[in-house]
Amino acid sequence: MGMYMDVHRGMTGITADQLKEAHEADLAIEKDEGVHFQKAWADPESGTVYCLSSGPSAEAVQRIHERTGHAADEIHPVTLMV
Amino acid sequence: MGMYMDVHRGMTGITADQLKEAHEADLAIEKDEGVHFQKAWADPESGTVYCLSSGPSAEAVQRIHERTGHAADEIHPVTLMV
Repeated sequence: MGMYMDVHRGMTGITADQLKEAHEADLAIEKDEGVHFQKAWADPESGTVYCLSSGPSAEAVQRIHERTGHAADEIHPVTLMV
Repeated sequence: MGMYMDVHRGMTGITADQLKEAHEADLAIEKDEGVHFQKAWADPESGTVYCLSSGPSAEAVQRIHERTGHAADEIHPVTLMV
């Protein structure tokens, strides 16, 4: 199990409800891949969304995001944290 | 007060000690700008570091990072979170 930070771009104007909805869609199916989406932060102005998750691989994280219609533009394994 | 996610690139090979040291350097002077660095995550392979902070402005966050020798490449105000 590792931790991953993924970045979604082009989400300009995303609302609190849309972020919640997208996050809940991921949570609803995350167990299929052994992933857990912990937290997400959004900057509606630049359209950037960051998601922090744990899971077996970046590919597993991406498969969940793809199935819920919002593939990540970048996924980085974050092996260090403070 | 807002929340900010900043991104540092080019930190390839960063170690746990180096991340801790950089974070502690920020913590030591953050009060000068009314900023608080909450958390940082690093991917040593791609050299990407994400920092989550709170503070009065992105400029205040950047001034702390500049003084400790690691200016951020991007800082986004994250006004939404789940």
